[in-house]
Amino acid sequence: MDSRSELDFIKHLRAHEQRRETLAADLVRSIGDDAAVVRQLAGRDTVVTTDLLVEDVDFHRDSIPPAMLGHKALAVSLSDIAAMGARARWALLSIGVPRDIWDSGFVDQLYEGFFALADRYDVRLVGGDLSRTPEKIVIDSIVLGECAHERAVLRSGARSGDQLFVTGSLGGSAAGLRLIERGARVESEDAADPDSPAVQQLVLRHLRPEPRVGWGMVLGGERLATAMIDISDGLSSDVNHLCEESKVGALIDASLIPIDPLVVNICGRRALDPLVLALHGGEDFELLFTVSPQDVARLPKKVDGVAITRVGEIKEASQSVRIAEGARVWELEPGGWDHFGKG
Amino acid sequence: MDSRSELDFIKHLRAHEQRRETLAADLVRSIGDDAAVVRQLAGRDTVVTTDLLVEDVDFHRDSIPPAMLGHKALAVSLSDIAAMGARARWALLSIGVPRDIWDSGFVDQLYEGFFALADRYDVRLVGGDLSRTPEKIVIDSIVLGECAHERAVLRSGARSGDQLFVTGSLGGSAAGLRLIERGARVESEDAADPDSPAVQQLVLRHLRPEPRVGWGMVLGGERLATAMIDISDGLSSDVNHLCEESKVGALIDASLIPIDPLVVNICGRRALDPLVLALHGGEDFELLFTVSPQDVARLPKKVDGVAITRVGEIKEASQSVRIAEGARVWELEPGGWDHFGKG
Repeated sequence: MDSRSELDFIKHLRAHEQRRETLAADLVRSIGDDAAVVRQLAGRDTVVTTDLLVEDVDFHRDSIPPAMLGHKALAVSLSDIAAMGARARWALLSIGVPRDIWDSGFVDQLYEGFFALADRYDVRLVGGDLSRTPEKIVIDSIVLGECAHERAVLRSGARSGDQLFVTGSLGGSAAGLRLIERGARVESEDAADPDSPAVQQLVLRHLRPEPRVGWGMVLGGERLATAMIDISDGLSSDVNHLCEESKVGALIDASLIPIDPLVVNICGRRALDPLVLALHGGEDFELLFTVSPQDVARLPKKVDGVAITRVGEIKEASQSVRIAEGARVWELEPGGWDHFGKG
Repeated sequence: MDSRSELDFIKHLRAHEQRRETLAADLVRSIGDDAAVVRQLAGRDTVVTTDLLVEDVDFHRDSIPPAMLGHKALAVSLSDIAAMGARARWALLSIGVPRDIWDSGFVDQLYEGFFALADRYDVRLVGGDLSRTPEKIVIDSIVLGECAHERAVLRSGARSGDQLFVTGSLGGSAAGLRLIERGARVESEDAADPDSPAVQQLVLRHLRPEPRVGWGMVLGGERLATAMIDISDGLSSDVNHLCEESKVGALIDASLIPIDPLVVNICGRRALDPLVLALHGGEDFELLFTVSPQDVARLPKKVDGVAITRVGEIKEASQSVRIAEGARVWELEPGGWDHFGKG
């Protein structure tokens, strides 16, 4: 990190830390050094993930307020840690911005959104980098988490007969993206309350996703999930990822998929298919996980107010990944978002 | 990560791992999951750093071969870990590239350079992200390392009377950058041999820096350094960073600064001042560290063939950071590279 930007970064970090208690015992050193030093309890494994967000590929400057961009950058990585059944603890944030953005309040607001989410889950920002870019904003979000020794929930642990579940609802983020592409914008950051119009709520579902942090910790900590993945590419893609890693097949019942009711509500008059959005939309950041039949009764009904839904069952690999809609059964091909595959 | 790029990333990783032994015991899971899982020995601290490299700010596509870019992305983070007196163990690499680069062999070559350096120091690539960008290449390099409990060497540990040392030589990278700006290019990747012309060697000093991994581990492991920083911004900036964090001053003797002999050699006929390049140039990725007077005799002469040089002494904060050139003594102001400060 160069000197000026490093000093600014340290300023941001220290200002935030001063609003919190003194450094936690597990955080040895974070601010103003070449690297952060963190300490794990004995017998714990460290889980680490990184997610790159690029302007005009992953977001558009004119449609996402900077605080929501800061929230989303952290949320996508918290979702990865949740999908490992682990607890997020430390974050690093690398930000590259063009000069006009640097000279505005954009970076401060981005940090505000980042810290608001980090504080909710007691995640500490321990490092990062700040750089200039020629034109576009780029953000790399890194999160370290922890789980008990050998308890990380991998994508590879699903076995035939396991039941397939998903948290929350699907399709909302994809619907929000379609609405943004058609001109919808965030009206106010308070628009997430239940009385706000459906369009606003869906737009926020895309711009300010809620990672399923609580569910991740419960499913990992209580050894409930045999395999897990977060739905970032879309259910159709991510169930295929999970099945590929586990060397199994799956049968999903389309009628069980928890499509966001707001999506059903707005789709009719906009020529959108709710099931297509729920299956292939992506960026819902719900958790898709598998549970042994004998453990299904141990599953809590809700965590942090979020319910889960059984959507199908794991099958032998020879049966591939299929979906049943009434009497029709077809192969469920990955149809999620693909940065390089699209024209 | 989206599905296509994720599959490509996994392909890269797995192809490389197949050329190595089976997964090390400390690496529980890395490839094809939401996050990597790593395991530290009991009683060790984890050190983590991230460095963002942006095209046309930190490098130019026409002057750095992709394999060297992969090398450099890892080298800058290994240098940060070395500066903590820690051992680098795991890396994550986030890469954003425009479509034309994606469709070329660029990314493969970048990974080759990255892995060649990683293998030399037994660092494992455990995760990362691949994304499209509209136009420019962006790379974020994340490295995790380890050190014994409470043995990380911070910037803040220097005390008045400590002796100030630097590894290797200074000014070579800055001279190489000036030569590149004036049209010099890499002629061959083998040009680093001692017989290659001085210009080629200096160009490579900038494009393919060698992190002082061995020195970092010795200075940390043997408790020799009281404080340490890597020289990324330039000696003048980085000695100020170290002194600021340690709340001390320093007196550097200009005649002791180990200016790269090649720099002296080429500067005369190019109107460049070797001392200015060595003081303010930046990106040498040498280590600047302080040693208690009673420990100086314990310092090895060389590590990995690289010598060290005493350049000055730590003073009380009231004496600020100064440099003596013969009888003249002046304040040493930070004059290193500043991404946002420059026109």
